[in-house]
Amino acid sequence: MPIQEKLKFIDKNASILEQRLIDFLKIQSISTDKFFAKSCDQAAEWLVGQLQALNFQVKAHQTEGHPIVLANGGEGSPHLLFYGHYDVQPADPLDAWDSAPFEPKIKFTKNGNAIFARGASDDKGQLMTFINACTAFMRTDGKLPCKITLLIEGEEETGSPSIETFIKSNKSFLQADYALVCDTSMWDSKTPAISTMLRGMLGEEINLKTANKDVHSGIYGGAILNPIKELAKAIASLHDENGKVMINNFYNGVSETPKFIKNQWEKLNFSSENFLADVGLKCSVGEASFSLLEQIWARPTCEVNGIWGGYTATGFKTVIPSEANAKVSFRLVGHQDPEEIRANFRKHLKNNVHKDCKLNFISKDGSKAISIPVESFVIKKAKQALFEEWGSAPVFIGCGGSIPIVGAFKEMLGLDTLLVGFALEDDRIHSPNEKYDLRSYHKGAKSWIRILDGITN
Amino acid sequence: MPIQEKLKFIDKNASILEQRLIDFLKIQSISTDKFFAKSCDQAAEWLVGQLQALNFQVKAHQTEGHPIVLANGGEGSPHLLFYGHYDVQPADPLDAWDSAPFEPKIKFTKNGNAIFARGASDDKGQLMTFINACTAFMRTDGKLPCKITLLIEGEEETGSPSIETFIKSNKSFLQADYALVCDTSMWDSKTPAISTMLRGMLGEEINLKTANKDVHSGIYGGAILNPIKELAKAIASLHDENGKVMINNFYNGVSETPKFIKNQWEKLNFSSENFLADVGLKCSVGEASFSLLEQIWARPTCEVNGIWGGYTATGFKTVIPSEANAKVSFRLVGHQDPEEIRANFRKHLKNNVHKDCKLNFISKDGSKAISIPVESFVIKKAKQALFEEWGSAPVFIGCGGSIPIVGAFKEMLGLDTLLVGFALEDDRIHSPNEKYDLRSYHKGAKSWIRILDGITN
Repeated sequence: MPIQEKLKFIDKNASILEQRLIDFLKIQSISTDKFFAKSCDQAAEWLVGQLQALNFQVKAHQTEGHPIVLANGGEGSPHLLFYGHYDVQPADPLDAWDSAPFEPKIKFTKNGNAIFARGASDDKGQLMTFINACTAFMRTDGKLPCKITLLIEGEEETGSPSIETFIKSNKSFLQADYALVCDTSMWDSKTPAISTMLRGMLGEEINLKTANKDVHSGIYGGAILNPIKELAKAIASLHDENGKVMINNFYNGVSETPKFIKNQWEKLNFSSENFLADVGLKCSVGEASFSLLEQIWARPTCEVNGIWGGYTATGFKTVIPSEANAKVSFRLVGHQDPEEIRANFRKHLKNNVHKDCKLNFISKDGSKAISIPVESFVIKKAKQALFEEWGSAPVFIGCGGSIPIVGAFKEMLGLDTLLVGFALEDDRIHSPNEKYDLRSYHKGAKSWIRILDGITN
Repeated sequence: MPIQEKLKFIDKNASILEQRLIDFLKIQSISTDKFFAKSCDQAAEWLVGQLQALNFQVKAHQTEGHPIVLANGGEGSPHLLFYGHYDVQPADPLDAWDSAPFEPKIKFTKNGNAIFARGASDDKGQLMTFINACTAFMRTDGKLPCKITLLIEGEEETGSPSIETFIKSNKSFLQADYALVCDTSMWDSKTPAISTMLRGMLGEEINLKTANKDVHSGIYGGAILNPIKELAKAIASLHDENGKVMINNFYNGVSETPKFIKNQWEKLNFSSENFLADVGLKCSVGEASFSLLEQIWARPTCEVNGIWGGYTATGFKTVIPSEANAKVSFRLVGHQDPEEIRANFRKHLKNNVHKDCKLNFISKDGSKAISIPVESFVIKKAKQALFEEWGSAPVFIGCGGSIPIVGAFKEMLGLDTLLVGFALEDDRIHSPNEKYDLRSYHKGAKSWIRILDGITN
């Protein structure tokens, strides 16, 4: 059947497809809270039911955490591996919601109707765009356009602790040709986007100890090491006055953003002023010689996410504490090596505090940055498909955050990933009143129909 | 009667005087805890009873907090004003005490017998040395050697919130010639000390705001202001690499320590190594061109007592917080002006953070440093008296901490203060197993007998 039949299927069945999402959103699959463990099982079973009805061979696999749903369907080349997650963030603060987070409501908004619920955008709504596309193929052609594997986990919001082990033990089922993920945003409500640059991530917690106990600043003040001053000195030494990171060899493996990407970004009409004004600021303080988009998409960063030490309650206590702590995280790009940077960061700190300081570090796993080749067959077809659906050419964008599964697919399965999503900036993911536009939901499904059709024809 | 009779009185009545202290120590006069408010009243009433028995005109005056005991006795010049406090620190952690904190026990120690209880040294035992001296005068001569006023408060451990108002309303009773305080330490167990330099104090809490909300470091990292980095930069800018404070005009009013004081300090056989080793450190990091004793007694300081901002719980959260905070305190010397330093400190911070930062400050009242003229009649007589009692000349020492009452006496009543005390470094004040040597207790009383005798003859 021609592609038009599949696209029409979405329009004709819009309200059924919406009801299906509503059913899914009613399940309180909050992964971080043990109280909701049964709801996570229920969400996995719900997906199993939906996929069985589409003739997938499917099972919810137990893990040490929440189940992972693995489904196989269709035949023929290429073999595509779609990833999504059924778990959601906690809904608190509950009283900030206009309607209950697990009682989905369709409401009119300035961009048309949207469905309001926790997980509407992240990731249940997005995930269902792909399942709806599969549904359209099954209900019109009676079969999928190629071999499709779905990998849907329930621990994305808690750092995906079980996924790597699962991939290792199920490599043979997952050995596809290309991976697809629907967990990213459009550029704006009119312009689709393909994320092609994902920054890597590295975390370090610093514990800096000086004296063997807290002491009175009247007795020892002015003479002995103050761990807060030492930590402040060390943090201040991490950047120069132009925002450059001063850790030895930090920029090893960082290359210039390709010109054609830069040109495209310049055409995006991105307003640094608005971006900063949104959070109440006027100036960018990133690396002076790079544009703001480069700073947040293509350049590596070093940020301090938390600091604590000494007396922090109300009033004053004239103490010189014996320790101070900070949490530092890095976003990595290009070929930067997380472990090399970790080692050089630790050396840098040792060199920038007094020799009487005792430094201890807690590591958070590092992940390399990912750059997806934009000239591949899949990306070309996706670009064309998105243009046809949305009427404007998709842009290749960077993504400041990290999507670790994409790194795992590359490293463990050798797969590149197509990152296409239909979320919008105002979807309020992780916040109260999360929503997903019905336009994103249905045009998202149609986008996937066009992408699958493009790849397989 | 000759002075020998009064000194003998202490020896003959040692066990009665010890029992008197035990009775006082049984009263749980913890000022910071409302649960013990009645015990504070009880301690004040106990003192009223003791002083009435010595023919003092005495009353426990109600305040907004705990009562202040004011007693007048004796006649003739000079008029001496003695200050002490009956309140004590909380006793927790209770399980770290070898015997119950409010069931005083006399135990043998390496320096002879000592009495173990909360407040034994700070300040009930020290306060009673003076009352015991008054007792010796009354029981031998039938009168005090001169006019003596006692001002004993119950809120010293909570910052003395009522004392200044009380002094203002009772100026006529308190308008003495010289003040006496027994709340300080000996130099060592053999060498008495007179504290003549008290550093002043100034507190500032910093709140530094950047964005109008916490944001995701993946999205904004590398581009926007990080308040922790800004605060770290500002803190790092407070000192140069030689420990000098870099705030404008900070050293205005700071003068060289007089040579004869410095010479005396050099003879103290003070070991910087031991002082630092006690807290597990090797190096002094104070102002490079000053000795450690000068650093802690005679030089001004700037210390950070607390810092907090961003995510500080277990694990990682990739947030760029919208604010960071620190508590900073200064010890002041000489004629440094707290309000001038406060203003210059705030200017310094503004100049050392990005212009998009919003700075707010919370003040803690500042107090000037106090230097007691060592050539006065009272100090000379005290020096002679202490030499006679202890067999070695007392040393003039600085005191890193601040004793705000001494500043209040100077500013509100124009009085200089004699600071003599018999506490020892190992008395564990504010800690479990606080003790006061019986030797300190009885020789302390005899020291006051000799001082009063010296001043009045």
